[in-house]
Amino acid sequence: MKKNIKQVNGNSSKEVNAMTKKVGVAILGLGVVGGGTYQTLTKHREYYLKTQNVDITVEAVLVRNKEKAVAQGVPAEILTDNIAEVIANPAVDIVVETIGGVDAAKDYVLAALREGKAVVTANKELVCKYSHELERVAKRTGCGIYYEASCVGGVPIIRTLLDGVQANRVQEMMGIINGTTNYILTKMSQEGADYADALKDAQKLGYAEADPTNDVEGFDALYKLSILSSLAFHTKVPYTKIYREGISKIDSKDIAYGKSLGYTLKLLAIGKNTEKGIEVRVHPTFVPNAHPLASVNDSFNAVYLKGDAVGDIMLYGRGAGAFPTASAVVSDVIYAATHAEVKYSTFKNTATADSSVKFVSDFESAYYVRLAVDDEAGVLAKMSGIFGKYGISLVAVSQITQKKEPDDEGILRVPLVIITHKTTETQIKNAMTKINASGMGKVQAAIRVES
Amino acid sequence: MKKNIKQVNGNSSKEVNAMTKKVGVAILGLGVVGGGTYQTLTKHREYYLKTQNVDITVEAVLVRNKEKAVAQGVPAEILTDNIAEVIANPAVDIVVETIGGVDAAKDYVLAALREGKAVVTANKELVCKYSHELERVAKRTGCGIYYEASCVGGVPIIRTLLDGVQANRVQEMMGIINGTTNYILTKMSQEGADYADALKDAQKLGYAEADPTNDVEGFDALYKLSILSSLAFHTKVPYTKIYREGISKIDSKDIAYGKSLGYTLKLLAIGKNTEKGIEVRVHPTFVPNAHPLASVNDSFNAVYLKGDAVGDIMLYGRGAGAFPTASAVVSDVIYAATHAEVKYSTFKNTATADSSVKFVSDFESAYYVRLAVDDEAGVLAKMSGIFGKYGISLVAVSQITQKKEPDDEGILRVPLVIITHKTTETQIKNAMTKINASGMGKVQAAIRVES
Repeated sequence: MKKNIKQVNGNSSKEVNAMTKKVGVAILGLGVVGGGTYQTLTKHREYYLKTQNVDITVEAVLVRNKEKAVAQGVPAEILTDNIAEVIANPAVDIVVETIGGVDAAKDYVLAALREGKAVVTANKELVCKYSHELERVAKRTGCGIYYEASCVGGVPIIRTLLDGVQANRVQEMMGIINGTTNYILTKMSQEGADYADALKDAQKLGYAEADPTNDVEGFDALYKLSILSSLAFHTKVPYTKIYREGISKIDSKDIAYGKSLGYTLKLLAIGKNTEKGIEVRVHPTFVPNAHPLASVNDSFNAVYLKGDAVGDIMLYGRGAGAFPTASAVVSDVIYAATHAEVKYSTFKNTATADSSVKFVSDFESAYYVRLAVDDEAGVLAKMSGIFGKYGISLVAVSQITQKKEPDDEGILRVPLVIITHKTTETQIKNAMTKINASGMGKVQAAIRVES
Repeated sequence: MKKNIKQVNGNSSKEVNAMTKKVGVAILGLGVVGGGTYQTLTKHREYYLKTQNVDITVEAVLVRNKEKAVAQGVPAEILTDNIAEVIANPAVDIVVETIGGVDAAKDYVLAALREGKAVVTANKELVCKYSHELERVAKRTGCGIYYEASCVGGVPIIRTLLDGVQANRVQEMMGIINGTTNYILTKMSQEGADYADALKDAQKLGYAEADPTNDVEGFDALYKLSILSSLAFHTKVPYTKIYREGISKIDSKDIAYGKSLGYTLKLLAIGKNTEKGIEVRVHPTFVPNAHPLASVNDSFNAVYLKGDAVGDIMLYGRGAGAFPTASAVVSDVIYAATHAEVKYSTFKNTATADSSVKFVSDFESAYYVRLAVDDEAGVLAKMSGIFGKYGISLVAVSQITQKKEPDDEGILRVPLVIITHKTTETQIKNAMTKINASGMGKVQAAIRVES
């Protein structure tokens, strides 16, 4: 951080040597992440003094309900419900924002930056939608803004992109970056549970919210992918450019059929940077069972990267939770406290994409397609023929079972599963329209496949 | 890096803006890693200019054989066989050491640091054995010394320990940090190959050297574990404190038997920091098949960490090779070029361990023990009884096959595999001595088990 770091000279404590930095932190919001951050910072104060030579104290905690905060063990004298007081407090060098949302959080972060305080935030939506505004103000006052905790919890993926694999052109990124959906899909896959039951279970365990839309429809992953792909590809990737499809329509039948063919279903956030342009998408995806992402289960997250020098690397860990996320928040606090210089985005951080950058929308992907077909001779050849007509070659055609199942119109038909080679979105859509119009079969599910 | 960074002001090139840093690099040695580093730096010069705002040029390459280097595409005018020339070259800001060994490499690195040049090294033996000496000189001249490439190739494990999970007390670290042995063990496991054949195969593919001792006996992993555990535990962990056992005595039979019981054999580097002290060891280890490390195959590496806030995280990738290692070297070069301040070890970096730190030698581990026993009634009870007598409880006793096998003395006996709960080294050794003296069975193999 640039300023506000006080050198403690001549401090009489034997643990604080002459060069120890003293840093004051304010935490905005005492929810799951804010609470974890408070506890980590207070519990480890001596440890950071010893290992990082920095004395970090929590000087203020902004809450609406002071009584509840006192019950959580926060001393009353550092509690306040007045943001102006926090911003004006000269003992506060770093403001940690763990409120969430883009209303109050944005105002508070901007106020802190204007006052010359470094900001550490866990707020993916804020960073995704407004990092350009925040950074503009930060640059003016010379403050740092850090957001490791906004993506993939305690996994240091942002630090890795900034300072670990920056020698590479990152060609591809595939991530399981939402714990809620990974928990639900793991449950569906391992126990054969229906989506609705798996969701209920996730809600009971606190992995999913009462209104799960943000997670299950892929918005949470979308925000994170926007942040990560902007850093990976060194250009602004607005979330509006990202194709998005959630998991709420997934039939457990397809998870089982996919499994029998050697695939595992995951909600993947995918970013590719090819000669054709940038391709960014969040959707349910089959990966081969042997792929490292296939065995990332429950609420664990992982990001798989391909760099032109490093090859394939993967980072794996807890994507959410009080302490894993606090690990990222506090690591950023320590980074801000112990690094003299402030760095901003290495790309032109604007609201919209750079006009010179191409985005691929008619992207290529292999497909798993489940058809309900009439149990007639020649139907397999006919269906295969339609794919062929649209230039789509097939990896496998499999009549998983001879048992008829009711299709989406309630007609008893036989399921036929087709795995295609890579095809464009246009090709596959045309083929599926043709199949639905053929009178011999109906598309029941179409899920992309990556390898 | 602290100094020698030239600001290119008023440069007429439109790509080099007024604030672009110009940084000159010298590469010492043009072997696998040096060559990969040269190619990465030259190929990506424009890319780093654009994405990192730094213009990195290779100003000198130290080689013994200039003709060979020219054939590799290095311009003759930057080649030299004279280290003094490199050190004296004012255009060189950062010296990359990729010679290896601790003789010339050490002298050259010290000379560079004395001259005020930052050093990036891929040399695990040098950093492990002499980082205290190098750092002492570096501190005097204010230079940075960076060594991400010394451990686990392109996987940014050192950056993660320094700047990604530093909010945590790291409690445990388990790594597959040697690609040669992982290749050999994967081959033995997947194809049932003998050690000797798998080694030959690794040598043919260039994964193992003609004299493979350094890799297969665990020295390479030992150096890396010393570096990584010093950083993780914030105290010097000299390699002399690390227990070491290689894989050359591993019988493929035990890999197969372990597999049938649900375990995969890996050469693990293990560091634990418990209330009893620090425990560091490199040895063949069975891990449960479901453990994330079990599916790290071939020459891939991975480090698994447990932090008190972040929980379990894992970093996975290529641990060696020209470009993966160059990724780490060049990422360090960019880090040195773009970070103003220089940081040294956060622990007291000395040749020996801090006298206040305890190291655990009689550590606890579960065990896989294979016995050759007489095919007599009561032998299972008798053997189990000996373990019990030494306070070792058993997870499983399994007569894998009824087929007799020649034991290490050529006597036909029945194999009996025992999996123990955690036991101390003393306990297990005593039990094994007793078994060997019992006249009814002989210990054929004893392999530690982690979960």
